[in-house]
Formats: sequence, C-alpha cells, structure tokens
Amino acid sequence: MRILLYRADGNTGPWIEDFARWLPEAEMVAWQEGADCGPCDYAITWGAPEPALKELAKVKAIFLGGAGADAILKHEDAIPRHVPIVRLGDAGMAIQMAEYVLHAVLRYFRRFDEYEAQARAGQWSPLPQHSREDFAIGVLGAGVLGSRVLDALKPFGFPLHAWSRSAKQIEGVRCHHGEEGLDALLRKARVLVCMLPLTPDTANLLNRTNLGKLPQGAYLINVARGAHVAEPDLLTLMKSGHIAGATLDVFRNEPLPVQHPFWQEPRITITPHISALTQRSESVQQIADKIRKLEKGETIADVVNREQGY
Amino acid sequence: MRILLYRADGNTGPWIEDFARWLPEAEMVAWQEGADCGPCDYAITWGAPEPALKELAKVKAIFLGGAGADAILKHEDAIPRHVPIVRLGDAGMAIQMAEYVLHAVLRYFRRFDEYEAQARAGQWSPLPQHSREDFAIGVLGAGVLGSRVLDALKPFGFPLHAWSRSAKQIEGVRCHHGEEGLDALLRKARVLVCMLPLTPDTANLLNRTNLGKLPQGAYLINVARGAHVAEPDLLTLMKSGHIAGATLDVFRNEPLPVQHPFWQEPRITITPHISALTQRSESVQQIADKIRKLEKGETIADVVNREQGY
Repeated sequence: MRILLYRADGNTGPWIEDFARWLPEAEMVAWQEGADCGPCDYAITWGAPEPALKELAKVKAIFLGGAGADAILKHEDAIPRHVPIVRLGDAGMAIQMAEYVLHAVLRYFRRFDEYEAQARAGQWSPLPQHSREDFAIGVLGAGVLGSRVLDALKPFGFPLHAWSRSAKQIEGVRCHHGEEGLDALLRKARVLVCMLPLTPDTANLLNRTNLGKLPQGAYLINVARGAHVAEPDLLTLMKSGHIAGATLDVFRNEPLPVQHPFWQEPRITITPHISALTQRSESVQQIADKIRKLEKGETIADVVNREQGY
Repeated sequence: MRILLYRADGNTGPWIEDFARWLPEAEMVAWQEGADCGPCDYAITWGAPEPALKELAKVKAIFLGGAGADAILKHEDAIPRHVPIVRLGDAGMAIQMAEYVLHAVLRYFRRFDEYEAQARAGQWSPLPQHSREDFAIGVLGAGVLGSRVLDALKPFGFPLHAWSRSAKQIEGVRCHHGEEGLDALLRKARVLVCMLPLTPDTANLLNRTNLGKLPQGAYLINVARGAHVAEPDLLTLMKSGHIAGATLDVFRNEPLPVQHPFWQEPRITITPHISALTQRSESVQQIADKIRKLEKGETIADVVNREQGY
C-alpha cells in the first residue's frame, strides 16, 4: 500500500515516522511538485493548493490532516465525486476546545477579566456575582466538538442551549435547530459559543442582525472560523455596549494584521488560532484505523458530505 | 426558640428574612452592644469580637456564618467547652472554589496568561503546548471543598495529588498525608493549590523551604488564607524564576495594602477574596436543618474539633 502525504508546512518527516509506527505496512511518499510519485492508494493532505490536489486525488480516499473541510471544499472540483474526503474525527482536539471554552466562560461568569483590569490599576474591589441562572450558554454546532464542550460545561449549572442543522437530543441541553431555533437560542444566550463548520450557510452568520438578538451585555466566544463573524458589526455592537466582551481564536486574516482594530479593543481577547491543535500521533492512529477498515471493505465515520459542506 | 445573630458587617436584615422562611418557628434577635438580648437557644456569628462572643456563647450551640473556623478559634476561651462550634459545610462555596481553581489551572496550562501579555503587545505568536502528563496538580486539603475541586479537575486528565492531615482515599487521585506525604506532593506538583484550614500547623506552610521543593516553573494558587504563605519567600522564588506564576485570592492583610509589592509583580494575579462567597440562603437552610436535628437530639456534621483547629 502506498500513501501520498502533503503538508502545506512541509513538515512531513514526523508524520512519516508516526505512520511507520501505526501503519507499518504502508509505504509513505511525500508529495513533491513535478516529481512522479507513482500510483498511490490513499492521500493525506492539509493545505494542498488546487494543482497538487488534482494529483493527490488519484486515490481511493483522501484524508484531511486537520480540522474543518472548508479549505479543501473550495477546490472540490479537483477531487472526483467517487473519491471520499474524510475529515478528522476528534484527534485530541475536543478536550482542548472544552478547555478553551470553559476557561473563557468561567472568566466572564466570575468576572476575572474585570478583576484583572482592577489589579493592573492597583484596585481591590469585590464585584457583585453574576447569577448562574442568568448565564445561559448557547453553543452553535453540536457535533463531536460541540458535544464535548457542552459536557465540560454541565457540572457548573448554567442553562445550556445548542443549535445544529438537524434536530438533536443531548441530555441536559436544550437543543434547537433551523432558523426559528437559531432565533430562540440567540435571544437567550448570555454567552454565545461558535463551533460551526464554515459553509456558505454559516459564513457571516454572526452579523449585526444576529448578534443584536443576544441579550444586553452578552459575550461571544469564537473557536470556529473567522469568516463566521462580520468583524465590523462585532465592533459596532461592542462600542454600543450591547456586547460586553469577546474571546476570539480565529479571524478572517491570520495572523491578525497589525493594524486591525481588534488589537485596540481591550474587551476583545485575542489568541493566535490555538484553541485546538491537531495532535499528530492521535490523527495518524485514527487515519490508520480508517484505512484498515476501508481495506476490509467496511464503512468509516467522518466522510465529508459535499452537499452539506462538512 | 430564640436565635441570636451577629454579623461584623451589621447586615443582619437579609439573614433574619431568610430564617423567617427556613426556620419560621425561631425568633431571631440581632445582637446589640450593651442591650439585653435575653436568653437564647442558638447563636449564629461571623466576625464577632471577643467581648461579644462571651455573650453569644451562652447557648446550646454556636454556628459560623462563613467558611473557616480560624477567626473564632483565636477567641476560643470565650466559648465554654460544652458549647459546640459548628462550621458551614458547603453552602454553595464548593462549586465557586472549583470554578476559581479550574479557571486558574486552565489559564496556566493553556498559557492564556502569556497570550494575554502577547495580545497587549499586539503580538501573534502560537506557543508550544504544555504536556498534560507534566502538569500534575497538587491540592493541599482534601475536605468538602478540596474534593469538589479535585472532581472538577478530573475530566481534564492532569495527574492529581492531594494532601490531608489523616490518610484518605479519593478515586482518581493520589492521596498523601503526614510530613513525608507533603514532601512527595510538593516535589511533583506543577500547580500547587492551597485549600487548607488555617491552624498553627499550617500557618506559613508555604515558605521558602516548601515552595522550593516544587518543580522549576511551578504555579501557586491560594484560596485558603493569606497566613499560609510566607509572602516575601514567594516573591524571592518568583524573582529567581523557580515559581512561574501565582493566583492569590487571600493575603495577610486585606484589602491588600496599596504599597504591597505583589501589585507590582505581573506574574501574580490578585483577586479581592472572592473565590467563594457565602451564599446566604444556602447557609441559612443548612443551619436551620442542623438546629432541627439538635432539637430532636440527633448528631450533626461539621462540628469543629478544637484540638485539630478546624
């Protein structure tokens, strides 16, 4: 079995080592422009440009080496319809997302952001506590990652809401779906957590209209994609005081440009796209398992639905 | 039944209202200096000075209206040995402690303190992740509050250690006790969480010798009492780089004096003794339950052991 590997960062060495450990029967080939890689059975790619994708796609299945299918689906035409695109299931990312979101939620609920500002000013001044009942959390997206984040929030007694494309049931969570469901969630969520896949339907979802439906003094946490947020609308709603704070890990342009106004807004907490880093070893184990299943003719999870866009 | 109430903050009104709801058979009397309060069955006190305590203690039992018995035990002689002192069990404080500690642990583990400093400097720079296995948490004190904090930490996969006066068993936690046990915990704890009662044995426990046993680059979280920490020793160990950061909610003098050097150390996060505020209504329900049990001749939990000091 021959497997073709493409990484936009060029750092194929450690991946090849991990595959030698988890799928020793495979011969790993690092993709090189212009070189003839010979016939391959599978491809693993992250960030391949369209011309490379055309070459990579001459396989039985193409696996993504990172979270989110939005980047590859921009060049969907380069991949024949009969070649399944397989996304990463979890690969150690869900627990990291849970940590990131829980930290941000607790920070706002317990007003640690305000205490930090006070401490920098040498000020000792206990603040009234927010009420748990008034601190509903609304999670947009209830897949593997969203569910894990909701689980992490459960022990703290906040009212929990989730919104997904199709109807779901999650214990201890009020689940919403469809357009009306989105409206209901937005009107309740004191903290809005965006964990959606990026598709034509979800791009710019967090615009002035939708963010304006949040209760006064709401908070936004975005760990999905920068393109979900209409950035100038967010700034407008923060300036008016409607949105009290935002924790953003993703942006339309990354790295966030030096002159971007977000840097100047102290109520926006910026992190450099680190909410969930792919754990290489876990990713490789997962892909190796799936390849073995395909070889035995079994079905596998996490095949991208090209119509849905994720 | 008559119950005498003392609050150092003078704010007895809401307590009396809550008792009217949860123990309507009781007549509540707010203590007043010089006034004759008449014979009372029980007393509830928080922050009573010694002369008032002498009056308050002419009862069947004395209940504390806040966490920790250290303040009242300073004036222990004012309370006859046959009058039990009853501390608050939880009263909504454990979940708050869990939130506070979990937030601080995640902040250090995920390097959010460093990302905040980077963001203030307009810097976008992903940092290598700490390894979960290298991030052992050591909790000093494994009572009601300590156990709840350990529970909150469990889903995140950190190696967990606890230290208590007597031997304990907690699932998923390596339990230590005694002097040797303290040494073993300190040598492993990348994050040290102090949740001890303040007694003559635990005062100044976090001094240069003991903090010096922590691994290089360790973090300290103190949610117990300021007197557990030898403050100049902590500063020395931070300046040498041995301790990388501290989150402190309690101090020897509160409010923390304006000229205190902690304000100038950016790696010390200061909060104004807010890690766990007593929830009045839950406290009153708990005390009302215990009074009913005593009236029926039943035994109650949370009676202070004067020899142990908590």
